[in-house]
Amino acid sequence: MASVYGTKLKLSVFGESHGDAIGVVIDGFPAGLKLDLDYIDAFMKRRAPGGNFSTKRTEPDIPKIVSGVSDGFTNGYPICAIIENTNQHSSSYQDKMTIPRPSHADYAAALKYGDHVELHGGGHFSGRLTAPLVFAGALCSLYLADFGIEIAAHIKQMLDVSDRSFGHNVTKNELAELKTHAFPTLDPTAGEAFAAIINSARDKGDSVGAKLECAAVGLPAALGEHMFESAEAEISSLIFAVPGVKGIEFGAGFDFCRMYGSQANDPYQYVDGKVVTKQNNCGGIVGGMTTGMPLIFSVAVKPTPSIFIPQDSIDLANNCNTTLKINGRHDPCIAVRAIPVIEACTAVALTQLILKSSGRKL
Amino acid sequence: MASVYGTKLKLSVFGESHGDAIGVVIDGFPAGLKLDLDYIDAFMKRRAPGGNFSTKRTEPDIPKIVSGVSDGFTNGYPICAIIENTNQHSSSYQDKMTIPRPSHADYAAALKYGDHVELHGGGHFSGRLTAPLVFAGALCSLYLADFGIEIAAHIKQMLDVSDRSFGHNVTKNELAELKTHAFPTLDPTAGEAFAAIINSARDKGDSVGAKLECAAVGLPAALGEHMFESAEAEISSLIFAVPGVKGIEFGAGFDFCRMYGSQANDPYQYVDGKVVTKQNNCGGIVGGMTTGMPLIFSVAVKPTPSIFIPQDSIDLANNCNTTLKINGRHDPCIAVRAIPVIEACTAVALTQLILKSSGRKL
Amino acid sequence: MASVYGTKLKLSVFGESHGDAIGVVIDGFPAGLKLDLDYIDAFMKRRAPGGNFSTKRTEPDIPKIVSGVSDGFTNGYPICAIIENTNQHSSSYQDKMTIPRPSHADYAAALKYGDHVELHGGGHFSGRLTAPLVFAGALCSLYLADFGIEIAAHIKQMLDVSDRSFGHNVTKNELAELKTHAFPTLDPTAGEAFAAIINSARDKGDSVGAKLECAAVGLPAALGEHMFESAEAEISSLIFAVPGVKGIEFGAGFDFCRMYGSQANDPYQYVDGKVVTKQNNCGGIVGGMTTGMPLIFSVAVKPTPSIFIPQDSIDLANNCNTTLKINGRHDPCIAVRAIPVIEACTAVALTQLILKSSGRKL
Amino acid sequence: MASVYGTKLKLSVFGESHGDAIGVVIDGFPAGLKLDLDYIDAFMKRRAPGGNFSTKRTEPDIPKIVSGVSDGFTNGYPICAIIENTNQHSSSYQDKMTIPRPSHADYAAALKYGDHVELHGGGHFSGRLTAPLVFAGALCSLYLADFGIEIAAHIKQMLDVSDRSFGHNVTKNELAELKTHAFPTLDPTAGEAFAAIINSARDKGDSVGAKLECAAVGLPAALGEHMFESAEAEISSLIFAVPGVKGIEFGAGFDFCRMYGSQANDPYQYVDGKVVTKQNNCGGIVGGMTTGMPLIFSVAVKPTPSIFIPQDSIDLANNCNTTLKINGRHDPCIAVRAIPVIEACTAVALTQLILKSSGRKL
Repeated sequence: MASVYGTKLKLSVFGESHGDAIGVVIDGFPAGLKLDLDYIDAFMKRRAPGGNFSTKRTEPDIPKIVSGVSDGFTNGYPICAIIENTNQHSSSYQDKMTIPRPSHADYAAALKYGDHVELHGGGHFSGRLTAPLVFAGALCSLYLADFGIEIAAHIKQMLDVSDRSFGHNVTKNELAELKTHAFPTLDPTAGEAFAAIINSARDKGDSVGAKLECAAVGLPAALGEHMFESAEAEISSLIFAVPGVKGIEFGAGFDFCRMYGSQANDPYQYVDGKVVTKQNNCGGIVGGMTTGMPLIFSVAVKPTPSIFIPQDSIDLANNCNTTLKINGRHDPCIAVRAIPVIEACTAVALTQLILKSSGRKL
Repeated sequence: MASVYGTKLKLSVFGESHGDAIGVVIDGFPAGLKLDLDYIDAFMKRRAPGGNFSTKRTEPDIPKIVSGVSDGFTNGYPICAIIENTNQHSSSYQDKMTIPRPSHADYAAALKYGDHVELHGGGHFSGRLTAPLVFAGALCSLYLADFGIEIAAHIKQMLDVSDRSFGHNVTKNELAELKTHAFPTLDPTAGEAFAAIINSARDKGDSVGAKLECAAVGLPAALGEHMFESAEAEISSLIFAVPGVKGIEFGAGFDFCRMYGSQANDPYQYVDGKVVTKQNNCGGIVGGMTTGMPLIFSVAVKPTPSIFIPQDSIDLANNCNTTLKINGRHDPCIAVRAIPVIEACTAVALTQLILKSSGRKL
Repeated sequence: MASVYGTKLKLSVFGESHGDAIGVVIDGFPAGLKLDLDYIDAFMKRRAPGGNFSTKRTEPDIPKIVSGVSDGFTNGYPICAIIENTNQHSSSYQDKMTIPRPSHADYAAALKYGDHVELHGGGHFSGRLTAPLVFAGALCSLYLADFGIEIAAHIKQMLDVSDRSFGHNVTKNELAELKTHAFPTLDPTAGEAFAAIINSARDKGDSVGAKLECAAVGLPAALGEHMFESAEAEISSLIFAVPGVKGIEFGAGFDFCRMYGSQANDPYQYVDGKVVTKQNNCGGIVGGMTTGMPLIFSVAVKPTPSIFIPQDSIDLANNCNTTLKINGRHDPCIAVRAIPVIEACTAVALTQLILKSSGRKL
Repeated sequence: MASVYGTKLKLSVFGESHGDAIGVVIDGFPAGLKLDLDYIDAFMKRRAPGGNFSTKRTEPDIPKIVSGVSDGFTNGYPICAIIENTNQHSSSYQDKMTIPRPSHADYAAALKYGDHVELHGGGHFSGRLTAPLVFAGALCSLYLADFGIEIAAHIKQMLDVSDRSFGHNVTKNELAELKTHAFPTLDPTAGEAFAAIINSARDKGDSVGAKLECAAVGLPAALGEHMFESAEAEISSLIFAVPGVKGIEFGAGFDFCRMYGSQANDPYQYVDGKVVTKQNNCGGIVGGMTTGMPLIFSVAVKPTPSIFIPQDSIDLANNCNTTLKINGRHDPCIAVRAIPVIEACTAVALTQLILKSSGRKL
């Protein structure tokens, strides 16, 4: 396991799906932030199970903050938030553990942790472990709000249906409005089509993947460093911690392979005395550093690997091929609940970049 | 700057394009590896400028190893390799420094480093700084070869032309053969088409982007950790250190958004007593850990931002809009020379994962 | 705050003296260790308050392990242990917060954390935060016991009274016996004299410092690295995390300044085919690496700064000099309860060195 | 090897005593510092061999700065300084390598690095590797001078002779004057006595240890963090990288064991509106954070282990006990040349603390 992140802002995530509790310790968070618990609660609810497009596991998921906060303000000490597990159904999983689920961590985990591997409900690999990440991200979003930074994500594509993309110069208002939508799309009709796809997948006992797009507006320029601590690397290291993520692209991303430099380059210009670029193919990052334009990136999320259709697998106890039939509660499309998780990871990464970039010059 | 990588295997990259020398210190590299200098030399030559599709800056780029090697073997001490800069033309760049080149690091770097920013030839941001990375990667490739691990990459797409993809079960022999091709494609006719595109871009003073695909064969299962030290995060943190990279996807990557789980999942099976998967959409990584199947990932490389066509930009000295005309030596497609760099970064990441994964169990 | 330790084995300590709970997340701990809860409990009781020589704050201090353990064995996931605070008397401290206690963290903490500083009971600076360290150390001691490694510490000096020192070749049996003593000294009569000093200091409302000596037996040779990851640095980084520690010396330590090299050097010899040294002035570490001889080091612990005798201080609210009179519960000599904390930190450091030293050679 | 230090300011030290070159890469150093080469040169000369009390190995030790500096100012990129080895006498060492020198790294290094260990002249363990540390420290001292911070060290004790100690309120002027002394003592007569001891040890083919004391004046309060990133831990991690160091104590250090709290505590008072302490037993650090008072600490340095008197050792090739007679060039007292090394390490640690402490509050 390597569930510790960061050098200045540090997260330490713990817990297993079917253990007593999950949570996170956040070290290095600045003192003096007023905790808006309603904001944090609303942020976490967006990830919580129980909605139309998610598993029926309905946990209240209320984080208990046991340290780092005094009189409603962060006090500069490590912040520990604990979320109790109150609704485990470990019987649903129990007898499947010698048959690794395809495209799940089970097989490699069994090799890595040996006889004492704990995979009920996914163990520490469970998507449930994103709840502490969302708590940390909600806190960081409050911190960023003081700098005027806003973050939002939407579902961009599913099967052959697409939502429209963020404009190169997406505004704070557009991001704020996106968060009011029942389904996280810019275009509500795309949301309806995505919902129909998910419902159909659920009915078939199947699941479906998606492409997400995330934007952050209000960033100062020159956050991030060249080479190994680039803004892209900082963001990626958090985004790839989200189960099911298999790709990330910044700005035009893989579409750059279809472009000439004369099309791809983002020319600078002064507009009202401010330096901006005429387009934003770079997604707000050049040379590993922010340009001050909106940060825009996309994320590939694979279909939930836990499906109810029987699948080929192996029986590790008997060394033979077999068929696996999964029970339990599983989202037909984890991408919907991944939206606030991606926003949260982005908030953590940007907070890190801001804290790290302080005091660099003499 | 943040040109230090790693916790067990550590790289510290230094140097500027137009300074005295560039290089790398490699700390934590195991003792006892026989240095095959011809292998290292051949690896570095694949990145070196001077080929048909690259800049005319022809530096011998012979690394001088000043520490960490005794009698032809690594001795366990830090390995420092220095590459002298012998062929700088700083005059080509000199008078452009107040006009930031579009989609280059110039503007953010000027903000970050202030009056003492050094951007001649790109400074420390120059693509030339990938030479030390390739040296480190060549060393790591030799280390991995002892485990039977082979790595190779090819150009997968450029404009509307595609090379074929690695098969889900690509073999060591296929990777070895790929490296013998004049142009790094699986299908030589794709190589010819790519070459034609590049030549055409050069003739127009333009540049072009590309998608690369990289594979590693022979990996043990269970390398990498869940969450923040996943194999994906480890690889990404190095790949995003390569100038021009704007995206990475593992296995089916962004194509997962077009799939149902029943299509996407990679079923396990025993073949000749060995656990394999029937397909490899996960690209050899599940839950952040290797599965033992080939590692396959793709990388988005944007077109070289330095083009000879005049571009809109701004004059930071006079606070006005202006037009920029770039001179100097620039590859019309950095993706060709990026191939060995991507292979090198992959070798470094895999060596890190192997060194870190040792000794985890009681 | 910077309450995160380590690169392979990682600790994240959280909590404030008068908050809801304190605890630790331990990441990177190997799977498969059987948890001997009686052993852990006994270890923690040695640090717990309520004994003859400690504060009257009597908390049960029973850690609740909420993750990382399944069926009584570590499962390789992060281990989170939480200790609830059940016996806070914050009123004892409350009105003193604008008068910094001499030789306490208060003044610097107020500058660092500003208006939102939390110093009731010492906040996160409280000696109570060593309880999670002891939990982590108890776990590591169980891990080390499988390698035949035993650790013990004693009080070496207080005012003019000395206990005898560990011999250069101290044995496992001697360490085991030391732990059975009512007062942690090698010589019981020294223990009685130390107890008398502490009682006398308590009666006067004063406190007293001490020198501790710690040994670890059964270590393999060649743990630790030269330069920045030496065994000395690894151990020091943990020992200096213990409140009140102001010095550390390995082997002969500061007595080396009274020696010639011909006296100081530890000659090697074969004894029964095993390489040992004739004496052990180096305390079992040379060149940053263990030699296989017993690890021996001493630690300086300052007197508890909280004393009941009135002291000069300042009033930060009114910017004037004043006199401070402290109430509350305070050990007259923290060194007694520091003994298991020092042993615990040593166990964590040695576990780290073992985990890091794996897999270095080809 | 683990010759990489730091998280914000990073050092990567490389080279072996008898290789081509040694050096350091400094990453994260702020842009805009004017390089005073005379200052750096003078600082390095204080460590250089060839003086009265040092080895006769006379290397010019002029660092060549190959990156990170433009037009005489740091440019924010990694700074690489290379020092060529021009005066190696590897024959002096060559045939002794199977007989480990007592209290030297040889034995553990042979176990760690196996057949390919390189120990000529001490390899990477050589005291010569402190030259790059001194370069880094000289650079950091220039940086600190802009904040009004001055650092100096002296020899405090050797055998039964003592120099006087820094006063609790030592001034910048006293530190500046100390550096003008021919022998680094506060009291010149102590210097003469130390010189006599060293000369006598040299005449006997022996060596001698020493205690050093170091002070830094002009520090702001609240640098450093509680627990694992305390000012004490930061400084120790660098000081223990210096070969021969076996102990460190801050302020009263081990003398705290002879004190009551009422003697030990440092009462606060306002003097001319400034917060100071009446005494400084804490050595300028409380709770891991600086208090604004002078930083004062002492370091134990063992006698040079290479002595010319025959010593007992073992023959690893023949598995038998033997006698070792060392030739070559060795300082009879490394403590003299350690003075600038300790100052340099302190400068690096304080620069790190300043860079890390920026931007902590909202």
